[in-house]
Formats: sequence, C-alpha cells, structure tokens
Amino acid sequence: MSVELKWLEKGTITSPKGFLAGATYSGIRTYTEDKLDLGIVSSEVPCTVAGTFTTNKIKSPSVVMNQRRVTSGRAQAVVINSGIANACVGEQGMTDALEMADLAAKHLDLDPELVLACSTGLIGVELPMALIRAGVAKVQLTADGGHDLGRAIRTTDTTDKEFAVSFHAGGKSYVLGGIAKGSGMVHPNMATMLAFLATDAPVEQQFLQEALSKSVDSSFNMISVDGDTSTSDSVIILANGAAGGDAITSGSPSAEAFRQALDEVCIALAREIARDGEGASKLVQVTVDGALSESDARIAARAVVSSTLVKAAIHGADPNWGRIMVALGYSGAELDESRVALYISDVCIMEDGRPIPYFKDAVVLTMSGPEISLRLDLNLGNASATAWGCDLSEEYVTFNSAYTT
Amino acid sequence: MSVELKWLEKGTITSPKGFLAGATYSGIRTYTEDKLDLGIVSSEVPCTVAGTFTTNKIKSPSVVMNQRRVTSGRAQAVVINSGIANACVGEQGMTDALEMADLAAKHLDLDPELVLACSTGLIGVELPMALIRAGVAKVQLTADGGHDLGRAIRTTDTTDKEFAVSFHAGGKSYVLGGIAKGSGMVHPNMATMLAFLATDAPVEQQFLQEALSKSVDSSFNMISVDGDTSTSDSVIILANGAAGGDAITSGSPSAEAFRQALDEVCIALAREIARDGEGASKLVQVTVDGALSESDARIAARAVVSSTLVKAAIHGADPNWGRIMVALGYSGAELDESRVALYISDVCIMEDGRPIPYFKDAVVLTMSGPEISLRLDLNLGNASATAWGCDLSEEYVTFNSAYTT
Repeated sequence: MSVELKWLEKGTITSPKGFLAGATYSGIRTYTEDKLDLGIVSSEVPCTVAGTFTTNKIKSPSVVMNQRRVTSGRAQAVVINSGIANACVGEQGMTDALEMADLAAKHLDLDPELVLACSTGLIGVELPMALIRAGVAKVQLTADGGHDLGRAIRTTDTTDKEFAVSFHAGGKSYVLGGIAKGSGMVHPNMATMLAFLATDAPVEQQFLQEALSKSVDSSFNMISVDGDTSTSDSVIILANGAAGGDAITSGSPSAEAFRQALDEVCIALAREIARDGEGASKLVQVTVDGALSESDARIAARAVVSSTLVKAAIHGADPNWGRIMVALGYSGAELDESRVALYISDVCIMEDGRPIPYFKDAVVLTMSGPEISLRLDLNLGNASATAWGCDLSEEYVTFNSAYTT
Repeated sequence: MSVELKWLEKGTITSPKGFLAGATYSGIRTYTEDKLDLGIVSSEVPCTVAGTFTTNKIKSPSVVMNQRRVTSGRAQAVVINSGIANACVGEQGMTDALEMADLAAKHLDLDPELVLACSTGLIGVELPMALIRAGVAKVQLTADGGHDLGRAIRTTDTTDKEFAVSFHAGGKSYVLGGIAKGSGMVHPNMATMLAFLATDAPVEQQFLQEALSKSVDSSFNMISVDGDTSTSDSVIILANGAAGGDAITSGSPSAEAFRQALDEVCIALAREIARDGEGASKLVQVTVDGALSESDARIAARAVVSSTLVKAAIHGADPNWGRIMVALGYSGAELDESRVALYISDVCIMEDGRPIPYFKDAVVLTMSGPEISLRLDLNLGNASATAWGCDLSEEYVTFNSAYTT
C-alpha cells in the first residue's frame, strides 16, 4: 500500500503544528563561520517520545540521561549545543547534562524531566556551563525557528539537512519534519550524527518507538562516511498530536501512512548526511538485490559502501568492480560467485560472476557525476537493502589529519 | 621459556638447508620497474606443508587448489606469479591454476600433486598462460635465489620483505626463513598478502599446521592497511627436515623453540607489510593490555589500528585521543570507561578514562617519527594483544583513485 506524501517547501522540524524552535550564539563554537551553536525545540504540549541511541560503549552522559528519560515515554523539549560533545569528561558530564536540561526547563517553564539535552563536537572537554547558562536564557522560540536550530546543531557539516512531509491518514492531514547533522565519524549504528524529528500526529508511544527503530534501521543505520560510531549519536522524535484525530497505534489504519512518512524523512536526512561526508564529492548508493535474507542484503550493501578501496575508486570515477566483488566477498553474506551480477549507474558490467564487455568511457562519465549508484544482484533470493555513503578524497585525509592540532 | 633466536643477515626463504628458488620476467607485469614477475621455491626433498588462506567467499581458484593439496600434508614446491590474481575469471581459473602447477612440476621433475600455485595482482583478468608456459621453463633455481623470488612476488610493494632466524633445539641448529608481499587490501584474516616460509627443521605436519595457524593469528591477522580482505591471501610453510634431528611434534621438547622462531619471523614480515601500506609514511603499533580476554584485546587493538579517523590523525601527528577512545568504544571489547588509560609513545595522556595534562609538543614530536606506538590499558584483566597498521595519507587516496583507469 503506497501512501501519498507531499514534500513541503522549506520543510523543517517546526513545520508540524504546535512546535517552536530557536537558536543563539553562545560562544562555544569557534571553528566555523556559522554563528549559531545552541538551540531548543519545544512543543506547546507534552509529547510522546521515542529515541535510538549510539551503541558505542563510550557514551556521552547526555545520551545516558536521554535514554533514561525517553523510557518514561513523554517529553516536551530538546536543548542542543554544538562545539563540545560532553563525552569522556568523567562524572562532571552527568552533572552538566542535567543542568543543561534544567536550564531549558526553567527558560520554558517545563517539568525538567520532560526535557532532553544533546551535545555534539569535541570529546574530552567539559561543557562551558557559564556560556550555556547565558545562552539558554537568550533563545527565542518561534513557529518558524526550525531552520535556525538546524544551523545551530551543525559542526563540520557544509549543508543544512532539513525536510518535512505532509500525509493524510484517518481523514486528517499530518506533518512530519526533521533536522539532522553529521558529516564525519558516521557509520551504521549511530555515528556523530544527531537527528530530531517532530510530528503533529497523535502517535501512541510504543508504536512511535517501534516505527522509529525500524525507520532508523533502513536509513541512518545504512549510511557510512568513515566507519566510526561516535559517543553521542541520537535520533529523537516527538509527537504532540496537535493536528487531532485518533491515536495512531501499531494496528491502526493510519499506522502504515505514518511509517512511510517517517521512512521517507529519515532516508532523505540520512542521504544528505552521506552526501555531506567530510571531504566527499559524491553521494554513493549501493543496493543489493536477490539476497537470501534481509540481513545478508544489509551487511553486503554496507560492506561495499564502507570499503576504503571502493570509496577511493569512486572518487577517481574508476569502475573497479574487482574491489566491489572483494568487499561483497568479505561481507559475510551468503553468495555464489557464479551468480553475481553488478550494475554501475544501471550499466551491467558483470554477469554470472564474470566481467562482461561494456563501454567503459560511458561508465566513467556517469561515475563523474555527483551521485553514483551501484547495484549487486546476488540471484539467490528475494531480499534487498540499500546503503548510502560517499567517496574518499584527499581532502578527507587533509581535513582529518589536522582536526585538533 | 625464552629461546635464543639469531637473525640471519640477508635472511630469506632459501636460508634454510635444502631449499632452492629462482625468478624470471615473463612479461605479465607491466606496471613496475622491477622486472621479475614469476618464480618458484622448491625443496630438494618432499616436505611437510601447512597453510592458512583467505576467508573471503570470493576466492581465487588457485587458493581452492592449494587448500585441497595442503590437506594431503605434503608438498615440495610453490610457483608464484604477480601481476594477475587469477580471481573472478570463472571456470578457466581452476584450469589455469592446475596447468601452472603442472608446468612447474614438469620443469622440476616433481609429482604435480606436490606443487602449489599462487597468483597475485589484478582481478577479473585471465592468466596469460602463453607467457606463463614460456616463463616457468626459464626459471633457474639456486640456493641463494630467495631474494629474487621475494622481488618477483611484489605488486605495489615498495620494499622487500624477507627474514630468517636460526634457533637451536634438541642439540641441532635449524633455520626458518620467509618472504612476504602485500601493501594494499590488507586486513585481518588474510588480505592481498602472500607469505612463504621454509624451514629445515623436521616438523611433523599436524604440529606444523597448528603452530602456523597460531603464529598467523598473532601476526598477519593483526595487521590492517585498508580493511579489505582479498581473494588470494595465503601463508604457506614447507618443512623439509634437511638439518636432521628428531621429529618436532606438539609435545616434543623442541616444539616451543620452533613456535617462537615461527612467531618472530611471522611478526617481522607482518610488520613490514603494515609499514609498507599503500601511501603510508608511518608504522603504527597498538597494544591493548588489561583486557578481560585475549579475544577482547585482539578486537580492541584491531579496531583502533583500523580506524580511518585514527589513521588520519596519526598521519598529521595529532594526539587525537578522542578518536582512539571512540574506536575502543565501538570495538565490542568489554570495558569500563572510568578505568581506561592511554599512552602515546609511552607518554600517559589519559588515566581513569579522562585526559590528563601532558606536554603536547613532545607527543607531537614523537608522533612525527617513522614508528608510533599506542598502548591502551583497560585495567580489567590480564589479557593483551598487539596490532600493526599504518597512517592514512593523501597519497593513499590518489594512488587508489587511479589504479586501473
């Protein structure tokens, strides 16, 4: 069943009804031109909330606090800073995370337990709480403040990442919008990436979590920039029900429409993160079809999109299918070499596990564009998966050789 | 129990008694200055043999043939070409692998079943058998031909990798020597790397395989250049017993001396492969101490040495300990953040999971040298492991963006 989704022009996290946001420059971030580094998104009424968080064993205390608060099922606001990650700072980290949420709660006159706090940026440095205290008090929240918040959460990002869709369900019209950041340390299972989503649909909490986890698995967990999973990765969604209608639950008629809207927004944000990978010049999409299981399709697509050698070849617009086959081979997915077919930009260049003659100049030309698609057909079963990543450039190395020094 | 090992000057695979080798230029390899691309190592008498091979599901048919022949427990010669890998070429690959071994057997007047054949280089291109037929017939084997063979197996390598040690056991003096190649597509579990080892010790086959697997696990399987495991990786050892003495078996008094000699030669060869990683300018050694289990220590050391972000930081001589902690955190090893200590070039820069003040200029200076050591102490148990890798340079990307086009 396909649902009609409409992309909203300049859609962002404040596109759904009843959400306000704003941002300010507190002085934490000194290394970019973009002078916003602290912001808040808030709903006019308490929301159901769901979240997925980093699997790294070294976690920011802010993540630990948010995980605990999300289990209550309710939240109303999120305060976010960029520049410093509040990670690897010992016990002070939890004290600061709690205070940061308290400051936002006081500023908005909310119950502190309904406020989440996220931090992204350098590790190992304590949050400059004096700046955060002064900054939070300055944040003005408005109904079109989503774009400013989107800018404030960026670190090494070079582009804004924000989208919103509207969809109809149960006779009502709903909006789901979101913002994201992330361009380095990005890899499956939540990397230095943050995404915040909001909807005015009345989504029941258990279904909200189930739908979010599923969408994250086929979007943010399928992108890779450099294979590193950070200490702070989080995807958080707030649903305030401001657009009315019946509660959307796992079995309800509107569930499928909500799932699709959530999938589309998560995939759109994830693709932008991959495209904006540090030093990247191309978005790479790898689809694996014909796998025996979805899990096989996923690990194969991620192995190919993550391979340093494949990424370097794509940077040079080099149809080096040997490296693609090697990555497929070590991915762990079940395969029969003699059945594998490979398409680069829809041109078949391998069949039955062997290269076939193709017009190389044309393939090199399509690989020189800003988006490249690889498709592998394992010809073993019916499962598929898609992963996104970027090329590996000399600029990536230069950039990451001199990040702190 | 420590055994006295003596490194031999200009030691190589023909240093042990009764081994001959030689190489020629057959014309397969056109992309390097070094005009040797085909060679053979042979023992004067049949040997016990052991091998470890790539875990990639896409394997060269040569590897499949060798695996089968090694299970017989006996071999006498190995013929090797560089330039073309004999992988992803369909059924022709097995036909060519068998013929290549047959050609060497005829040339040396041996039973073909006692000959192994290895190929390394480009994937997806059939072996030019006319060149190989003419080439094998030209190979002259001599007692000091190991160095030529070592040069012939190189592809993108920029240095020779050959070592030999002598050791005493059971009143006899033995020699164990080896050669290796590999500089790209190198990662734990056998990457585009080949290593050939020979000893004149009378090592019983079952113990030879057991000792080889163990040594490979703590040497070749602990190096990473780019995370990619190739279709052809193999480590093969021949033991001809030419130096006499009692058979060395698992429980015999000489077993430990043999194990140590094998460990040392494998680690020396593996370190040279890591040091010579494509575009690399530094050898990186990562030791993890205080882990709960050896398996934890291994995965942690490998995660840190394989991290693209850590490798880029090391290239820039940047003590970016945050990235090291992040890699440790996602490695999967059991850890307690508040106990972790980190040393860069023996300078402690983190204790109890938090950065401590250190003289940064001194650390940056030591990181600017050709070898860098990182040590993580998890302070949880007694297990340790060491992994080796290299930095990630702009040259690596440039090189790998334009390998085939």
